[in-house]
Amino acid sequence: MKYTLILLFIALISNAQIKKEQLDLMPWPQTINVTNDTFKLGKNFKLNITGNPNSRIFIGATNFLRRLDGLTGLFFDQGFVTKLNEFPKAELQINCTQNGKIALHQNESYQLDITPNKIVINAHSDLGALHGLETLLQILQNNSTEYFFPTVSINDFPRFTWRGLMIDVARHFQPVDVIKRNLDAMAAVKLNVFHWHLTDDQGWRIQVNKHPKLTQLGSDGLYYTQEEIKSVVKYADERGILVVPEIDVPGHASAILTAYPEIGSAKNMSSPYKIERNAGIFNPTLDPSNPITYQLLSEIFDEVCPLFPGAYFHIGGDENEGKEWDANPKIQEFKKKIKLVTNHDLQTFFTMKLIPMLKKHNKQLMGWEEIMTKDMSKNAIIHSWKGPNEGLPVGQSVANAAKNGYQTVLSNGYYLDLMQSVNDHYLNDPIPENSTLTVEEKAKILGGEATMWSELVSPATIDSRIWPRTAAIAERLWSSQEIIDLSSMHKRMKNVSFRLEELGITHIKNKAMILRNISNNQEIKALAEFSNICEPLKIYSRNAGGTEYQMYSPLTLFADACSADASDALDFDIAVNRFLKNNNTENQQSVINFLNKWMVINTDLINLSLNAPLIQPILPLSKSLSDLSQQLLVRIKDKRVNNSLLLIELLEQCNSKNHADVELAVYKSLKKLMDN
Amino acid sequence: MKYTLILLFIALISNAQIKKEQLDLMPWPQTINVTNDTFKLGKNFKLNITGNPNSRIFIGATNFLRRLDGLTGLFFDQGFVTKLNEFPKAELQINCTQNGKIALHQNESYQLDITPNKIVINAHSDLGALHGLETLLQILQNNSTEYFFPTVSINDFPRFTWRGLMIDVARHFQPVDVIKRNLDAMAAVKLNVFHWHLTDDQGWRIQVNKHPKLTQLGSDGLYYTQEEIKSVVKYADERGILVVPEIDVPGHASAILTAYPEIGSAKNMSSPYKIERNAGIFNPTLDPSNPITYQLLSEIFDEVCPLFPGAYFHIGGDENEGKEWDANPKIQEFKKKIKLVTNHDLQTFFTMKLIPMLKKHNKQLMGWEEIMTKDMSKNAIIHSWKGPNEGLPVGQSVANAAKNGYQTVLSNGYYLDLMQSVNDHYLNDPIPENSTLTVEEKAKILGGEATMWSELVSPATIDSRIWPRTAAIAERLWSSQEIIDLSSMHKRMKNVSFRLEELGITHIKNKAMILRNISNNQEIKALAEFSNICEPLKIYSRNAGGTEYQMYSPLTLFADACSADASDALDFDIAVNRFLKNNNTENQQSVINFLNKWMVINTDLINLSLNAPLIQPILPLSKSLSDLSQQLLVRIKDKRVNNSLLLIELLEQCNSKNHADVELAVYKSLKKLMDN
Repeated sequence: MKYTLILLFIALISNAQIKKEQLDLMPWPQTINVTNDTFKLGKNFKLNITGNPNSRIFIGATNFLRRLDGLTGLFFDQGFVTKLNEFPKAELQINCTQNGKIALHQNESYQLDITPNKIVINAHSDLGALHGLETLLQILQNNSTEYFFPTVSINDFPRFTWRGLMIDVARHFQPVDVIKRNLDAMAAVKLNVFHWHLTDDQGWRIQVNKHPKLTQLGSDGLYYTQEEIKSVVKYADERGILVVPEIDVPGHASAILTAYPEIGSAKNMSSPYKIERNAGIFNPTLDPSNPITYQLLSEIFDEVCPLFPGAYFHIGGDENEGKEWDANPKIQEFKKKIKLVTNHDLQTFFTMKLIPMLKKHNKQLMGWEEIMTKDMSKNAIIHSWKGPNEGLPVGQSVANAAKNGYQTVLSNGYYLDLMQSVNDHYLNDPIPENSTLTVEEKAKILGGEATMWSELVSPATIDSRIWPRTAAIAERLWSSQEIIDLSSMHKRMKNVSFRLEELGITHIKNKAMILRNISNNQEIKALAEFSNICEPLKIYSRNAGGTEYQMYSPLTLFADACSADASDALDFDIAVNRFLKNNNTENQQSVINFLNKWMVINTDLINLSLNAPLIQPILPLSKSLSDLSQQLLVRIKDKRVNNSLLLIELLEQCNSKNHADVELAVYKSLKKLMDN
Repeated sequence: MKYTLILLFIALISNAQIKKEQLDLMPWPQTINVTNDTFKLGKNFKLNITGNPNSRIFIGATNFLRRLDGLTGLFFDQGFVTKLNEFPKAELQINCTQNGKIALHQNESYQLDITPNKIVINAHSDLGALHGLETLLQILQNNSTEYFFPTVSINDFPRFTWRGLMIDVARHFQPVDVIKRNLDAMAAVKLNVFHWHLTDDQGWRIQVNKHPKLTQLGSDGLYYTQEEIKSVVKYADERGILVVPEIDVPGHASAILTAYPEIGSAKNMSSPYKIERNAGIFNPTLDPSNPITYQLLSEIFDEVCPLFPGAYFHIGGDENEGKEWDANPKIQEFKKKIKLVTNHDLQTFFTMKLIPMLKKHNKQLMGWEEIMTKDMSKNAIIHSWKGPNEGLPVGQSVANAAKNGYQTVLSNGYYLDLMQSVNDHYLNDPIPENSTLTVEEKAKILGGEATMWSELVSPATIDSRIWPRTAAIAERLWSSQEIIDLSSMHKRMKNVSFRLEELGITHIKNKAMILRNISNNQEIKALAEFSNICEPLKIYSRNAGGTEYQMYSPLTLFADACSADASDALDFDIAVNRFLKNNNTENQQSVINFLNKWMVINTDLINLSLNAPLIQPILPLSKSLSDLSQQLLVRIKDKRVNNSLLLIELLEQCNSKNHADVELAVYKSLKKLMDN
């Protein structure tokens, strides 16, 4: 009886009006109007497609049905959607005026109207309709027994046309299934450009039939066949995503030069080129004075370009320090002969040679910002990646490109491998409010792109570096500039994170898997809790110098189970802030609970470690935190505020970066607590 | 200090002599001798390969290094193994006399000798060496700080040459990555035949260039390209696994006939053939009287056979009830004309036509046991699948085939989709000890094959149906007939199960994922605990009749998170048995703890269900168990033995099969407890 009453009560409050703030939409739509009613989802739910869409909408609609029945457990009658106007009376009507094209500057808008008996998606093309279906999935609500959609009217379109994710498959190869599940996740948050970093010092990852040595000698057997490339491009197309391939030249060339040393710039070949196993910037560089270099590249482009129907081709161009060029008299002579002064000039000469090779295939050249010199074609797209870490002010590099008249894409501030807080990425606007750019210059900024460099990610961990954080970047690139509330973003991202699992994203489940291995198949609770207050070392400080990890070193360690924005650290910070504001019993108890918990975790970890060598490296950190917690408990209970030397020493031990490649994400909050 | 002492103590006992029984080897080797020492694993560990192996050993050795460093977190110097004799002084020496061939009846033996400073694997070929490396990984031990191998001498070889796993990719398509991770897992337990059930009523899953309609109309877009097929065959070869394709004819033909209705046996085409969405036995059957049938099949074989270098081709041949044949006068006339009496005769006529088509490609025909009639070629291999469920005594069908002079493979008793206990599979010997077959007849029994029919599995759940149970079947097929101790098997299988995660097998992590979805992203502890005492309905009683689930219905339900051999049910049974044997306080408390826990779980589930509709279907079952637990607690504490009507009724409610497609796996133990 009591149970029935509770159910009834919940059913009542759940069906009460849903507020806008309750919806976990991400990216947040341009306009949304929520009304006081619901559309109830039942087994008979069907959808119908009208208009003139591209056939990708059928795949998108079928996937939508399968995801919706997976989430709800409802046994929909409708199986595979394959035709227009199959069920004219269906509850969900999708109308697309035009056949969507996979390109920039397309009309991606959609209108979603949910009324109690009907859902209508009106979109310019299938591209917008796919976005609308993702919004519909995100807006799903439930009470205790039913699923429903709140009645809303949404009008939505993106702020930027380039909303990208780059995945580096050179440092650590990522098999096709990893790429495909990430394409699904991209589509779920309305990203539309997949930038595929296919070559680097550590590997050449794309089959070239005319030059099989590239993969035979430069890939360790880890590469995509052309058919696999095609299947990824098709999969992306079906999800409204443009694929931009990158062949990185003239630097980052160890792998290509392992296969074709004859086009390298090294003065002598006494130490032959080898696939690079470390991380960093390396010397191997193509020889810009050698005609064979251009012949080979041209033949590579002739094979690679047709695999990618999109209009853009990324040629890298970054981090060429020109050491091999400087050391090679033949190249110096060449430079003089064609009257070039600097290595930048020489690189521009090189890059300009590539433009017609790509133009032949209707491709526009794109490169990292180093390609931007005074002689570089204004048709090139400049990919901005430098910022404070490289000694440049935030935003300067992308603004410079725009001022210089180049179309440009921002990646500085979106480097996922740096393990920074999502807040930093979220607040990094391609065109900040205080921007002094002209309207015309602003229009040159196409958007932004999250970059997943893969020095320290394996197929098992890459998702946990990309997701859910990239959802916040996606919102920055799609939603209105004013959408910047951090706590709303965190709340919504939590739900997006959960929903990403249905697309196969492994960020949650593989964390548990890694912890099971670390614990040697013992109970992982204490490890999981400790991992929720630890973060991997940030901004290149893990694997500092690039030589501790080889590209085949294990990434099954505690740091690999941790991620940026450690969840309990966020909660502890909130507790500390409350306590500092008001030292009442409740707030005090909340802090005490954390401290007690960390002492218990330490004991549990010690016990686990008796049968798990991989736990040993984290014990010093867990002991420091436990010792400090013990002292802080005394201090809080005694209401003393003076910090003994011991306490200060213990705090500093909690700031150590010397253990297990992680740092305690609660350090700052602990310091705040002590400094009080 | 205390901590250090404990560590020291553990280090001491861990390094003490390892007993044979402590090793979690599976399949158990033919002979093993453990001595009193260890080989300590360090960062400098290297391996070296000598002899005349196939190059697959290099891939196997590289994978071995990566798995070993993944498990241990050690940063080995050795990266990719690509050459013979690269490190002559390496601690692990692998010598293969011959180049292994992927075929039946190969010498797969290996000798593994571990001494304190050296490990030697001597194998006839790389096939045995790969088995030896798997054994070495399984034998890894650790104390609190180090990993080591115990010193052992193992001499090992398989009992049967055919140790297979079949995966049905027709009912639910399984993408390439699902197949590949399962090949890895197969190799880990020394299985050597992957039987790929590629076609059925629910889908035609292999591209045939000459007949594109097969996949265009018969696959819903879900099929393997020929390049994907090749990549799977290569992947299998690298792991020592033979791939046997199956094109199921003349029955199970709905998909092929959807593409080519003209070769169907239906009398009229008023209701055209369609891809089947339900489960069961269906009428669509190829027309054996139509020459075009044979022409098409011959052309299909001409394309499909060369993709599979192995010597065997499975043509299905099962469950043709001949209804379309009986109803079609043209076919009846044909039968009369060629003087055949029964439909079995007609099917034999049909099957015999296929033999030369396959022989042309050096393939031997294999089929399900229905193909065995008096006129069937003795060269055909008979795949035995019928047993008690089909009204035949255990073992009769495989024995019949052997007596009739056919080579034969046993699958009856290894049907993974029936959700039976692993014990049943484990004790199902292809040649039982009491077998009356002659030595010659016994030699006809090639081995056995676990079959994963996919009516009720998705790519997300299939691993949890196959694993870890198939490891026990693998042991039955590899190890000596006397290895039948169930508790040893369960103990070892637990560790194998954990280790399968490193190969990408998702049985553990996807369970948590499904439960997160069911709980609507709430805490899953109670759900997980309840799932550990529930099992999916067995032996075709889930989806009884085959029409409740369509092939696109959700498999994200509670039953999909549960699996056979519910872990806590096994533990509860042990507790009950102890209690019934000796009603002391400790044994009593152990039973009481379970009962209390189930009452708490019920309360937790009710609370979770307030925000999770997918939990509703399991509440009646959890309530029944909770109610019964409450009554039993009273009974145990009062030491009464009489069962009230209420108690009996509650027990029967716990035996219900009407909720959420699961049954309580603790019912029998509860009954035992009450019957006492």
